[in-house]
Amino acid sequence: MRTLAVVGTGLIGTSIGLAMSRRGITVHLVDRDTSAARTAAALGAGVTADPTGPVDLAVIAVPPRAVADVLAEQHARGLARSYTDVASVKALPTRQADAGLPDPSCYVGGHPMAGREQSGPLAARADLFDGRAWVLTPSPRTAQTALNHVLELVALCGAVPLVMDSEVHDQAVALTSHAPHVVASLMAARLQHGPPEALRLVGQGLRDATRIAGGDPRLWADILRSNAAPVARVLRELADDLAELLTALEDVARDDASQDPGTGAVVDLLERGAEGLHAVRPARVRRSGPTLRVTLGETPGELARLLDTVTDHGVGTEDVTTRVDPVQDRMTAEFTVPPVTAGQLRRRLGEQGWQVEGAAVRPTRRPLPQPSHVDDLWDQEVLPSQRVASLPGVS
Amino acid sequence: MRTLAVVGTGLIGTSIGLAMSRRGITVHLVDRDTSAARTAAALGAGVTADPTGPVDLAVIAVPPRAVADVLAEQHARGLARSYTDVASVKALPTRQADAGLPDPSCYVGGHPMAGREQSGPLAARADLFDGRAWVLTPSPRTAQTALNHVLELVALCGAVPLVMDSEVHDQAVALTSHAPHVVASLMAARLQHGPPEALRLVGQGLRDATRIAGGDPRLWADILRSNAAPVARVLRELADDLAELLTALEDVARDDASQDPGTGAVVDLLERGAEGLHAVRPARVRRSGPTLRVTLGETPGELARLLDTVTDHGVGTEDVTTRVDPVQDRMTAEFTVPPVTAGQLRRRLGEQGWQVEGAAVRPTRRPLPQPSHVDDLWDQEVLPSQRVASLPGVS
Repeated sequence: MRTLAVVGTGLIGTSIGLAMSRRGITVHLVDRDTSAARTAAALGAGVTADPTGPVDLAVIAVPPRAVADVLAEQHARGLARSYTDVASVKALPTRQADAGLPDPSCYVGGHPMAGREQSGPLAARADLFDGRAWVLTPSPRTAQTALNHVLELVALCGAVPLVMDSEVHDQAVALTSHAPHVVASLMAARLQHGPPEALRLVGQGLRDATRIAGGDPRLWADILRSNAAPVARVLRELADDLAELLTALEDVARDDASQDPGTGAVVDLLERGAEGLHAVRPARVRRSGPTLRVTLGETPGELARLLDTVTDHGVGTEDVTTRVDPVQDRMTAEFTVPPVTAGQLRRRLGEQGWQVEGAAVRPTRRPLPQPSHVDDLWDQEVLPSQRVASLPGVS
Repeated sequence: MRTLAVVGTGLIGTSIGLAMSRRGITVHLVDRDTSAARTAAALGAGVTADPTGPVDLAVIAVPPRAVADVLAEQHARGLARSYTDVASVKALPTRQADAGLPDPSCYVGGHPMAGREQSGPLAARADLFDGRAWVLTPSPRTAQTALNHVLELVALCGAVPLVMDSEVHDQAVALTSHAPHVVASLMAARLQHGPPEALRLVGQGLRDATRIAGGDPRLWADILRSNAAPVARVLRELADDLAELLTALEDVARDDASQDPGTGAVVDLLERGAEGLHAVRPARVRRSGPTLRVTLGETPGELARLLDTVTDHGVGTEDVTTRVDPVQDRMTAEFTVPPVTAGQLRRRLGEQGWQVEGAAVRPTRRPLPQPSHVDDLWDQEVLPSQRVASLPGVS
């Protein structure tokens, strides 16, 4: 690819322009707001001059419901040989392209999973897509040339391509992005009606839970309406859960909390929530290594000193368990140690006078590394899919 | 205060023990789980031996619905002269203390706004309450001695006392903590039912929005049921908003998204959400300083170089606006500059060849500081209440 056009020089379009210009591609910037295109050009994202002939690929970087019209218009004008978009819904533009373009084989839907809280060209960054997933939704009729142009775009932007059916993509983002946005907005909307004292009790938990509600309301209304059926399906089920919980809480409130109604429904929802979270937690590192057991004396603060020593060797406090032996009335602390520091830690604990039991440590042939960061000390087993899953999504 | 008892040596109780022991107070640790009390003692949070007479203050650090029974039991035993608790609901324990204690004047409800995602004594930290708000809910019948004991506890833990009516506290936390927990759980529970592809599209937005759903389901069920009426009130209003949004989205879905129904309801909710967010945003720093305007030439990337220079002088990219003069066809960039670097920045831009216009900069008498952190450069006007409001809340 030698030439690219970006239609719509907001955050995403301008970031693509910056990334591609850096790779030596000639980027033509188009926006109905001349000032936005000029700003993108002044940042180094490309030129505002029209191309002299069709470019290799045009990226339509406009809101979801505007994609079809802009695509048809630029296609009619002969702007490019291949086309893609960056909207966060894919079935609607794909359907509209199939119906509206004389030759839909030149279009491949795309959705880079990257974004920032600020919008507009001034917020753009050349490295916005570095290591991020970039969904592509080719159909059986997509031309190979078009697919390859888009794959090259994704590669040059430093992203990881992820081919997906457009309907499956829309169901997935309804769950992972669109419904969460609605839920954050529903909660944030309540904050307009609280007692003034409530503001002094606001914490990071609430801020995190509502942060995504800060997105541009018009853009998000466009996204939600473009993916209405999948989003409504998720929210309908959520509303059913909420209705059940409300019945339980209102029962409790009526009984003046002296009885115990509603426990089942409340615990059930909270447990399902905690389980659902496991699906989206960053890759859990599998920790395997020798287990050590230390017997503690009666000196106050002895356990704190032990924790200081073991955490210096890559053990997290959440990996430590304590137990009191009822017969001997002695306390023991047990923990799994990263293999590379186990020998060192065992010696250190011995030097400090603790009685240590536990699996014999295999001698290592490599010299022991100096611990720098806890996670470096463990055998991390992270699946590639989990790595992708831990990428921040588009907002 | 010389002596303290902590009943319940979990995260909060043990952290209080650590903080108070460090201040030279004798702390007696009580827990029905001997191993938890022994663990807290081994960390240096106090001693497991019973006090020889009544201590000055006992902190009942057990789940909300257990407070009344434990308080009555310890009071009957004569454990302390004054009592407080740390539960995240206040009306229920206050009502129960009034009804159940022979002398309720010795009890002051308390709620430190601090927590961690881990629980149990091993997660405890002496500095857990540093700078955090700690709500106290004395009633007209509270004895001055009891109030002063609790104020001393809060001060020695490094927290900021905040006196509040117990009912107002419960309405406030229903809105800022309990309802958000339910909403996060409702969303997280949906994640059990997504297409497998969805997991690859999970981003930081979803993780932040659902993070608090990771709390202990049994403890949280206890909290929600103890504050059922205020939580139900918030959630009922939220459910009404959700029902309206669902109707709009289902209308859009039925019309196959070709028409434009539902825009009003969808935009309305999103706008109310964005407005509600302003209430909980960390204190917005009021930025006042001279405004500078720079005229740009035609060189690509010129704006990027300008941004590099101005951001080095404490200007954020969100504070920059660009404009194209339609008559002269020239682009200008305008931004407000922190007063202390304005003169320096103006000279620097001049040296780099830019044409700068804007308010004359008053000469400073102090030598210009070297910028270290952007926020240090501004006249920050943060109200004390906003500072408290930006503290992480309990979870």
